[in-house]
Amino acid sequence: MTGLVLTTLAWVPDFPRGYVRDLRVRWALEEAGLPYSVRTVSGKDRGAEHLARQPFGQVPILTDGDITLFESGAILVHLGLQTPVLMPEDPKGRAEVLQWVFAAVNSVETAALPRIICDFAKDDTRTPGREALDTYLTGRLDGMEAVLATRDWLAGRFSIADILMADAFRLFDGTDILADHPACQGYVDRATARPAFQKALADQLAHFAAADAQIAAPAGAIDV
Amino acid sequence: MTGLVLTTLAWVPDFPRGYVRDLRVRWALEEAGLPYSVRTVSGKDRGAEHLARQPFGQVPILTDGDITLFESGAILVHLGLQTPVLMPEDPKGRAEVLQWVFAAVNSVETAALPRIICDFAKDDTRTPGREALDTYLTGRLDGMEAVLATRDWLAGRFSIADILMADAFRLFDGTDILADHPACQGYVDRATARPAFQKALADQLAHFAAADAQIAAPAGAIDV
Repeated sequence: MTGLVLTTLAWVPDFPRGYVRDLRVRWALEEAGLPYSVRTVSGKDRGAEHLARQPFGQVPILTDGDITLFESGAILVHLGLQTPVLMPEDPKGRAEVLQWVFAAVNSVETAALPRIICDFAKDDTRTPGREALDTYLTGRLDGMEAVLATRDWLAGRFSIADILMADAFRLFDGTDILADHPACQGYVDRATARPAFQKALADQLAHFAAADAQIAAPAGAIDV
Repeated sequence: MTGLVLTTLAWVPDFPRGYVRDLRVRWALEEAGLPYSVRTVSGKDRGAEHLARQPFGQVPILTDGDITLFESGAILVHLGLQTPVLMPEDPKGRAEVLQWVFAAVNSVETAALPRIICDFAKDDTRTPGREALDTYLTGRLDGMEAVLATRDWLAGRFSIADILMADAFRLFDGTDILADHPACQGYVDRATARPAFQKALADQLAHFAAADAQIAAPAGAIDV
Protein backbone atom coordinates (compact mmCIF):
# COMPACT_ATOMS: atom_id res chain seq x y z
CA MET A 1 0.00 0.00 0.00
CA THR A 2 1.53 3.30 -1.07
CA GLY A 3 0.44 6.86 -1.40
CA LEU A 4 -1.90 7.10 1.56
CA VAL A 5 -3.14 10.67 1.94
CA LEU A 6 -5.28 11.75 4.88
CA THR A 7 -7.44 14.84 4.43
CA THR A 8 -8.28 16.77 7.58
CA LEU A 9 -9.18 20.33 8.54
CA ALA A 10 -6.58 23.09 8.18
CA TRP A 11 -7.38 24.50 11.61
CA VAL A 12 -9.87 24.06 14.45
CA PRO A 13 -10.34 25.93 17.76
CA ASP A 14 -8.82 24.42 20.89
CA PHE A 15 -11.80 22.43 22.16
CA PRO A 16 -12.06 19.76 19.42
CA ARG A 17 -8.30 19.27 19.22
CA GLY A 18 -7.51 15.66 20.00
CA TYR A 19 -11.03 14.68 18.94
CA VAL A 20 -11.20 15.50 15.21
CA ARG A 21 -11.96 12.18 13.59
CA ASP A 22 -8.83 12.06 11.50
CA LEU A 23 -7.46 10.75 14.81
CA ARG A 24 -9.10 7.38 14.20
CA VAL A 25 -7.38 7.05 10.85
CA ARG A 26 -4.04 8.27 12.20
CA TRP A 27 -4.35 5.73 15.04
CA ALA A 28 -5.07 2.83 12.67
CA LEU A 29 -2.20 3.83 10.38
CA GLU A 30 0.18 4.00 13.35
CA GLU A 31 -0.96 0.58 14.59
CA ALA A 32 -0.25 -0.81 11.12
CA GLY A 33 3.01 1.10 10.64
CA LEU A 34 1.72 2.62 7.39
CA PRO A 35 3.20 6.00 6.39
CA TYR A 36 0.87 8.72 5.17
CA SER A 37 0.84 12.35 4.20
CA VAL A 38 -1.70 14.99 5.19
CA ARG A 39 -3.77 17.37 3.08
CA THR A 40 -6.18 19.95 4.43
CA VAL A 41 -9.49 21.59 3.67
CA SER A 42 -10.64 24.85 5.17
CA GLY A 43 -13.08 24.45 8.03
CA LYS A 44 -14.42 27.96 7.46
CA ASP A 45 -15.20 27.55 3.80
CA ARG A 46 -16.15 23.97 3.10
CA GLY A 47 -16.75 24.78 -0.54
CA ALA A 48 -18.42 22.97 -3.40
CA GLU A 49 -15.36 20.87 -4.18
CA HIS A 50 -15.24 19.45 -0.66
CA LEU A 51 -19.01 18.99 -0.43
CA ALA A 52 -18.92 17.08 -3.72
CA ARG A 53 -16.54 14.64 -2.04
CA GLN A 54 -18.17 14.64 1.42
CA PRO A 55 -21.88 15.55 1.58
CA PHE A 56 -21.74 16.57 5.25
CA GLY A 57 -18.67 18.79 4.81
CA GLN A 58 -16.70 16.65 7.22
CA VAL A 59 -13.29 15.05 7.58
CA PRO A 60 -11.50 12.66 7.44
CA ILE A 61 -11.12 11.55 3.85
CA LEU A 62 -8.52 8.95 2.86
CA THR A 63 -6.96 8.65 -0.58
CA ASP A 64 -5.34 5.27 -1.23
CA GLY A 65 -4.00 5.17 -4.78
CA ASP A 66 -7.02 5.58 -7.06
CA ILE A 67 -9.48 5.06 -4.19
CA THR A 68 -10.88 7.96 -2.17
CA LEU A 69 -13.38 7.42 0.63
CA PHE A 70 -14.87 9.24 3.59
CA GLU A 71 -16.42 8.09 6.92
CA SER A 72 -13.86 7.10 9.53
CA GLY A 73 -15.53 3.71 10.05
CA ALA A 74 -15.42 2.93 6.33
CA ILE A 75 -11.78 4.00 6.13
CA LEU A 76 -10.87 1.69 9.00
CA VAL A 77 -12.67 -1.28 7.43
CA HIS A 78 -11.01 -0.47 4.09
CA LEU A 79 -7.61 -0.52 5.78
CA GLY A 80 -8.52 -3.59 7.83
CA LEU A 81 -9.39 -5.58 4.71
CA GLN A 82 -5.82 -5.07 3.48
CA THR A 83 -3.94 -5.15 6.77
CA PRO A 84 -4.21 -8.25 9.01
CA VAL A 85 -2.79 -6.40 12.01
CA LEU A 86 -5.96 -4.26 11.96
CA MET A 87 -8.50 -7.03 11.18
CA PRO A 88 -7.99 -10.80 10.80
CA GLU A 89 -8.17 -12.21 7.26
CA ASP A 90 -10.12 -15.37 8.14
CA PRO A 91 -13.89 -14.94 7.72
CA LYS A 92 -14.69 -15.88 11.31
CA GLY A 93 -12.23 -13.48 12.89
CA ARG A 94 -13.23 -10.79 10.41
CA ALA A 95 -16.93 -11.23 11.23
CA GLU A 96 -16.20 -10.84 14.93
CA VAL A 97 -14.35 -7.58 14.32
CA LEU A 98 -17.11 -6.29 12.01
CA GLN A 99 -19.71 -7.07 14.67
CA TRP A 100 -17.92 -4.85 17.18
CA VAL A 101 -17.14 -2.17 14.59
CA PHE A 102 -20.87 -1.71 14.04
CA ALA A 103 -21.63 -2.04 17.76
CA ALA A 104 -19.30 0.95 18.23
CA VAL A 105 -20.67 3.19 15.48
CA ASN A 106 -24.34 2.17 15.39
CA SER A 107 -25.17 1.08 18.96
CA VAL A 108 -22.78 2.90 21.30
CA GLU A 109 -21.93 6.12 19.46
CA THR A 110 -25.55 6.54 18.34
CA ALA A 111 -26.54 6.57 22.01
CA ALA A 112 -23.59 8.70 23.15
CA LEU A 113 -23.83 11.54 20.67
CA PRO A 114 -27.25 12.96 21.71
CA ARG A 115 -25.96 13.24 25.28
CA ILE A 116 -22.85 15.08 24.13
CA ILE A 117 -24.87 17.39 21.87
CA CYS A 118 -27.19 18.27 24.79
CA ASP A 119 -24.23 18.78 27.12
CA PHE A 120 -22.55 21.01 24.54
CA ALA A 121 -25.76 23.06 24.38
CA LYS A 122 -25.50 23.29 28.22
CA ASP A 123 -28.98 21.72 28.37
CA ASP A 124 -29.98 19.40 31.19
CA THR A 125 -33.75 20.01 31.06
CA ARG A 126 -35.36 16.75 32.17
CA THR A 127 -37.92 16.44 29.40
CA PRO A 128 -39.47 13.03 28.58
CA GLY A 129 -37.36 12.87 25.42
CA ARG A 130 -34.17 13.58 27.34
CA GLU A 131 -35.07 10.93 29.93
CA ALA A 132 -35.58 8.44 27.10
CA LEU A 133 -32.26 9.37 25.48
CA ASP A 134 -30.41 8.98 28.80
CA THR A 135 -32.07 5.61 29.48
CA TYR A 136 -31.04 4.49 26.00
CA LEU A 137 -27.42 5.50 26.68
CA THR A 138 -27.32 3.81 30.09
CA GLY A 139 -28.58 0.57 28.53
CA ARG A 140 -25.79 0.62 25.99
CA LEU A 141 -23.14 1.36 28.64
CA ASP A 142 -24.48 -1.43 30.86
CA GLY A 143 -24.20 -3.84 27.93
CA MET A 144 -20.63 -2.79 27.20
CA GLU A 145 -19.70 -2.89 30.89
CA ALA A 146 -20.61 -6.59 31.02
CA VAL A 147 -18.54 -7.27 27.91
CA LEU A 148 -15.50 -5.27 28.95
CA ALA A 149 -15.44 -6.78 32.44
CA THR A 150 -14.41 -10.03 30.74
CA ARG A 151 -11.80 -9.00 28.19
CA ASP A 152 -9.11 -6.50 27.31
CA TRP A 153 -10.10 -6.09 23.63
CA LEU A 154 -13.39 -6.68 21.89
CA ALA A 155 -12.40 -9.35 19.38
CA GLY A 156 -9.68 -11.42 21.00
CA ARG A 157 -6.86 -9.04 20.14
CA PHE A 158 -6.68 -5.32 19.43
CA SER A 159 -8.40 -4.38 16.15
CA ILE A 160 -10.12 -1.51 14.34
CA ALA A 161 -13.19 -2.28 16.48
CA ASP A 162 -11.26 -1.11 19.55
CA ILE A 163 -10.25 2.12 17.84
CA LEU A 164 -13.88 2.91 17.04
CA MET A 165 -15.29 1.81 20.41
CA ALA A 166 -12.62 3.55 22.49
CA ASP A 167 -12.95 6.73 20.46
CA ALA A 168 -16.75 6.63 20.90
CA PHE A 169 -16.19 6.47 24.67
CA ARG A 170 -13.72 9.36 24.40
CA LEU A 171 -16.74 11.58 23.70
CA PHE A 172 -17.18 11.38 27.48
CA ASP A 173 -13.70 12.69 28.34
CA GLY A 174 -13.98 15.41 30.95
CA THR A 175 -17.43 14.23 32.12
CA ASP A 176 -18.50 11.78 34.82
CA ILE A 177 -20.65 9.75 32.42
CA LEU A 178 -18.47 6.63 32.74
CA ALA A 179 -18.13 6.94 36.54
CA ASP A 180 -20.53 4.02 37.11
CA HIS A 181 -18.97 1.96 34.33
CA PRO A 182 -15.39 1.29 35.47
CA ALA A 183 -14.74 -1.49 32.95
CA CYS A 184 -15.62 0.91 30.11
CA GLN A 185 -13.35 3.59 31.61
CA GLY A 186 -10.54 1.07 32.12
CA TYR A 187 -10.88 0.04 28.49
CA VAL A 188 -10.53 3.64 27.29
CA ASP A 189 -7.48 4.09 29.51
CA ARG A 190 -5.94 0.86 28.16
CA ALA A 191 -6.63 1.81 24.53
CA THR A 192 -5.35 5.36 24.81
CA ALA A 193 -2.16 4.19 26.55
CA ARG A 194 -1.13 2.40 23.36
CA PRO A 195 1.89 4.00 21.65
CA ALA A 196 0.00 4.21 18.35
CA PHE A 197 -2.76 6.26 19.96
CA GLN A 198 -0.24 8.52 21.68
CA LYS A 199 1.61 9.12 18.38
CA ALA A 200 -1.65 9.80 16.51
CA LEU A 201 -2.80 12.24 19.19
CA ALA A 202 0.54 14.05 19.26
CA ASP A 203 0.49 14.31 15.46
CA GLN A 204 -3.03 15.76 15.40
CA LEU A 205 -2.16 18.29 18.10
CA ALA A 206 1.06 19.23 16.29
CA HIS A 207 -0.86 19.68 13.02
CA PHE A 208 -3.20 22.26 14.57
CA ALA A 209 -0.39 23.94 16.53
CA ALA A 210 1.50 24.41 13.25
CA ALA A 211 -1.65 26.00 11.80
CA ASP A 212 -1.75 28.44 14.75
CA ALA A 213 1.83 29.41 13.96
CA GLN A 214 1.04 29.94 10.27
CA ILE A 215 -1.95 32.13 11.09
CA ALA A 216 0.18 34.23 13.45
CA ALA A 217 3.07 34.57 10.97
CA PRO A 218 3.60 38.02 9.39
CA ALA A 219 3.47 36.45 5.93
CA GLY A 220 -0.27 36.09 6.39
CA ALA A 221 -2.91 33.74 7.61
CA ILE A 222 -3.62 30.36 6.10
CA ASP A 223 -7.21 29.85 5.03
CA VAL A 224 -8.66 28.27 8.17
CA MET B 1 -23.01 -20.38 1.43
CA THR B 2 -25.31 -22.80 3.24
CA GLY B 3 -27.04 -22.98 6.56
CA LEU B 4 -27.91 -19.33 7.02
CA VAL B 5 -30.00 -18.90 10.15
CA LEU B 6 -31.54 -15.56 11.10
CA THR B 7 -32.40 -15.02 14.76
CA THR B 8 -35.20 -12.56 15.46
CA LEU B 9 -37.78 -11.94 18.19
CA ALA B 10 -40.57 -14.47 18.76
CA TRP B 11 -43.23 -11.76 18.96
CA VAL B 12 -43.50 -7.96 19.07
CA PRO B 13 -46.51 -5.63 19.45
CA ASP B 14 -48.04 -4.14 16.32
CA PHE B 15 -46.12 -0.85 16.19
CA PRO B 16 -42.58 -2.12 15.46
CA ARG B 17 -43.78 -4.73 12.94
CA GLY B 18 -42.17 -4.00 9.61
CA TYR B 19 -39.32 -2.20 11.38
CA VAL B 20 -37.59 -4.89 13.46
CA ARG B 21 -34.06 -4.92 12.15
CA ASP B 22 -34.12 -8.50 10.99
CA LEU B 23 -35.81 -6.81 8.00
CA ARG B 24 -32.44 -5.50 6.80
CA VAL B 25 -30.99 -9.00 6.78
CA ARG B 26 -34.09 -10.52 5.16
CA TRP B 27 -33.93 -7.80 2.50
CA ALA B 28 -30.24 -8.46 1.71
CA LEU B 29 -30.82 -12.21 1.58
CA GLU B 30 -33.74 -11.73 -0.82
CA GLU B 31 -31.68 -9.42 -3.04
CA ALA B 32 -28.98 -12.12 -3.17
CA GLY B 33 -31.42 -15.01 -3.56
CA LEU B 34 -29.96 -16.75 -0.50
CA PRO B 35 -32.29 -19.12 1.38
CA TYR B 36 -32.37 -18.94 5.18
CA SER B 37 -34.23 -20.29 8.16
CA VAL B 38 -35.48 -18.36 11.19
CA ARG B 39 -34.92 -18.93 14.90
CA THR B 40 -36.41 -16.83 17.65
CA VAL B 41 -35.61 -15.45 21.06
CA SER B 42 -38.18 -14.21 23.52
CA GLY B 43 -38.56 -10.45 23.59
CA LYS B 44 -39.97 -10.60 27.12
CA ASP B 45 -37.18 -12.62 28.65
CA ARG B 46 -33.92 -11.78 26.94
CA GLY B 47 -32.04 -14.13 29.20
CA ALA B 48 -28.41 -14.73 29.98
CA GLU B 49 -27.86 -16.95 26.94
CA HIS B 50 -29.06 -14.24 24.56
CA LEU B 51 -27.22 -11.46 26.39
CA ALA B 52 -24.03 -13.51 26.19
CA ARG B 53 -24.41 -13.43 22.40
CA GLN B 54 -25.75 -9.88 22.10
CA PRO B 55 -24.83 -7.44 24.88
CA PHE B 56 -27.76 -5.11 24.17
CA GLY B 57 -30.34 -7.91 24.10
CA GLN B 58 -31.20 -7.11 20.50
CA VAL B 59 -31.84 -8.85 17.22
CA PRO B 60 -30.92 -9.72 14.50
CA ILE B 61 -28.22 -12.32 14.80
CA LEU B 62 -27.01 -14.29 11.77
CA THR B 63 -25.46 -17.74 11.90
CA ASP B 64 -23.53 -18.64 8.77
CA GLY B 65 -21.95 -22.07 9.22
CA ASP B 66 -19.53 -21.73 12.16
CA ILE B 67 -19.80 -17.93 12.18
CA THR B 68 -22.33 -16.10 14.34
CA LEU B 69 -22.53 -12.32 14.40
CA PHE B 70 -24.88 -9.54 15.47
CA GLU B 71 -25.41 -5.91 14.34
CA SER B 72 -27.40 -5.58 11.14
CA GLY B 73 -24.68 -3.44 9.54
CA ALA B 74 -22.00 -6.03 10.29
CA ILE B 75 -24.20 -8.84 8.97
CA LEU B 76 -24.74 -6.94 5.71
CA VAL B 77 -21.01 -6.29 5.24
CA HIS B 78 -20.30 -9.95 6.08
CA LEU B 79 -22.78 -11.03 3.38
CA GLY B 80 -21.52 -8.37 0.98
CA LEU B 81 -17.95 -9.62 1.23
CA GLN B 82 -19.14 -13.02 -0.08
CA THR B 83 -21.86 -11.92 -2.46
CA PRO B 84 -20.98 -9.55 -5.35
CA VAL B 85 -24.63 -8.70 -5.99
CA LEU B 86 -24.65 -7.01 -2.55
CA MET B 87 -21.20 -5.33 -2.74
CA PRO B 88 -18.65 -5.22 -5.60
CA GLU B 89 -15.52 -7.36 -5.18
CA ASP B 90 -13.08 -4.83 -6.61
CA PRO B 91 -11.46 -2.67 -3.91
CA LYS B 92 -12.59 0.62 -5.44
CA GLY B 93 -16.24 -0.38 -5.76
CA ARG B 94 -16.13 -1.98 -2.33
CA ALA B 95 -14.70 1.17 -0.75
CA GLU B 96 -17.47 3.26 -2.30
CA VAL B 97 -20.12 0.96 -0.82
CA LEU B 98 -18.41 0.92 2.58
CA GLN B 99 -18.31 4.72 2.60
CA TRP B 100 -22.10 4.88 2.19
CA VAL B 101 -22.70 2.00 4.60
CA PHE B 102 -21.05 4.04 7.34
CA ALA B 103 -22.70 7.26 6.19
CA ALA B 104 -26.02 5.47 6.76
CA VAL B 105 -25.29 4.01 10.19
CA ASN B 106 -22.92 6.60 11.67
CA SER B 107 -23.95 9.92 10.07
CA VAL B 108 -27.62 9.64 9.09
CA GLU B 109 -29.07 7.14 11.56
CA THR B 110 -27.10 8.70 14.44
CA ALA B 111 -28.87 11.98 13.67
CA ALA B 112 -32.27 10.40 13.01
CA LEU B 113 -32.62 8.26 16.10
CA PRO B 114 -32.69 11.05 18.77
CA ARG B 115 -35.56 12.66 16.87
CA ILE B 116 -37.48 9.39 16.76
CA ILE B 117 -36.81 8.71 20.45
CA CYS B 118 -38.11 12.19 21.39
CA ASP B 119 -41.16 11.76 19.12
CA PHE B 120 -41.85 8.36 20.66
CA ALA B 121 -41.74 10.02 24.09
CA LYS B 122 -44.28 12.56 22.67
CA ASP B 123 -41.80 15.30 23.57
CA ASP B 124 -41.46 18.42 21.46
CA THR B 125 -40.16 20.77 24.17
CA ARG B 126 -37.88 23.24 22.39
CA THR B 127 -34.91 23.06 24.73
CA PRO B 128 -31.45 24.16 23.52
CA GLY B 129 -30.40 20.50 23.32
CA ARG B 130 -33.42 19.59 21.23
CA GLU B 131 -32.75 22.54 18.91
CA ALA B 132 -29.17 21.35 18.48
CA LEU B 133 -30.30 17.77 17.77
CA ASP B 134 -32.82 18.97 15.16
CA THR B 135 -30.23 21.22 13.49
CA TYR B 136 -27.85 18.26 13.38
CA LEU B 137 -30.52 16.11 11.69
CA THR B 138 -31.46 18.79 9.16
CA GLY B 139 -27.80 19.14 8.17
CA ARG B 140 -27.56 15.43 7.49
CA LEU B 141 -30.78 15.40 5.48
CA ASP B 142 -29.63 18.42 3.45
CA GLY B 143 -26.39 16.61 2.66
CA MET B 144 -28.22 13.47 1.55
CA GLU B 145 -30.77 15.50 -0.44
CA ALA B 146 -27.96 16.92 -2.59
CA VAL B 147 -26.54 13.42 -3.15
CA LEU B 148 -29.85 11.74 -3.91
CA ALA B 149 -30.93 14.48 -6.31
CA THR B 150 -28.20 13.20 -8.63
CA ARG B 151 -28.53 9.42 -8.48
CA ASP B 152 -30.88 6.49 -7.97
CA TRP B 153 -28.52 4.47 -5.73
CA LEU B 154 -25.63 5.55 -3.56
CA ALA B 155 -22.78 3.60 -5.11
CA GLY B 156 -23.55 3.31 -8.81
CA ARG B 157 -25.89 0.36 -8.47
CA PHE B 158 -28.05 -0.98 -5.65
CA SER B 159 -25.97 -2.35 -2.74
CA ILE B 160 -26.09 -3.02 1.00
CA ALA B 161 -25.50 0.72 1.48
CA ASP B 162 -28.95 1.40 0.02
CA ILE B 163 -30.55 -1.14 2.36
CA LEU B 164 -29.02 0.60 5.38
CA MET B 165 -29.67 4.17 4.18
CA ALA B 166 -33.24 3.52 3.06
CA ASP B 167 -34.02 1.68 6.29
CA ALA B 168 -32.56 4.57 8.32
CA PHE B 169 -34.93 6.93 6.46
CA ARG B 170 -37.81 4.52 7.15
CA LEU B 171 -37.54 5.64 10.79
CA PHE B 172 -39.47 8.68 9.50
CA ASP B 173 -42.40 6.68 8.07
CA GLY B 174 -45.67 8.24 9.20
CA THR B 175 -44.04 11.61 9.99
CA ASP B 176 -43.52 14.73 7.86
CA ILE B 177 -39.78 14.84 8.59
CA LEU B 178 -38.82 14.20 4.94
CA ALA B 179 -41.44 16.62 3.55
CA ASP B 180 -38.77 19.20 2.69
CA HIS B 181 -36.41 16.54 1.32
CA PRO B 182 -38.21 15.10 -1.70
CA ALA B 183 -35.13 13.37 -3.15
CA CYS B 184 -34.68 11.48 0.14
CA GLN B 185 -38.36 10.50 0.16
CA GLY B 186 -38.21 9.47 -3.50
CA TYR B 187 -35.20 7.30 -2.68
CA VAL B 188 -37.07 5.52 0.13
CA ASP B 189 -40.04 4.97 -2.20
CA ARG B 190 -37.73 3.58 -4.91
CA ALA B 191 -35.91 1.26 -2.48
CA THR B 192 -39.04 -0.07 -0.81
CA ALA B 193 -40.69 -0.75 -4.19
CA ARG B 194 -38.04 -3.40 -4.89
CA PRO B 195 -39.43 -6.96 -4.92
CA ALA B 196 -36.77 -8.07 -2.42
CA PHE B 197 -37.89 -5.44 0.09
CA GLN B 198 -41.55 -6.36 -0.43
CA LYS B 199 -40.80 -10.06 0.12
CA ALA B 200 -38.72 -9.33 3.23
CA LEU B 201 -41.44 -7.10 4.67
CA ALA B 202 -44.18 -9.66 3.95
CA ASP B 203 -42.09 -12.39 5.58
CA GLN B 204 -41.47 -10.34 8.72
CA LEU B 205 -45.16 -9.46 9.02
CA ALA B 206 -46.15 -13.12 8.44
CA HIS B 207 -43.68 -14.22 11.12
CA PHE B 208 -45.28 -12.04 13.77
CA ALA B 209 -48.83 -12.85 12.58
CA ALA B 210 -48.03 -16.54 13.02
CA ALA B 211 -46.87 -15.76 16.56
CA ASP B 212 -50.20 -14.04 17.27
CA ALA B 213 -51.98 -17.21 16.13
CA GLN B 214 -49.80 -19.39 18.35
CA ILE B 215 -50.46 -17.21 21.37
CA ALA B 216 -54.22 -17.35 20.70
CA ALA B 217 -54.25 -21.13 20.16
CA PRO B 218 -55.89 -23.26 22.89
CA ALA B 219 -52.73 -25.35 23.19
CA GLY B 220 -51.13 -22.40 24.96
CA ALA B 221 -49.08 -19.31 24.39
CA ILE B 222 -45.58 -19.30 22.99
CA ASP B 223 -43.00 -17.57 25.11
CA VAL B 224 -43.13 -14.07 23.66
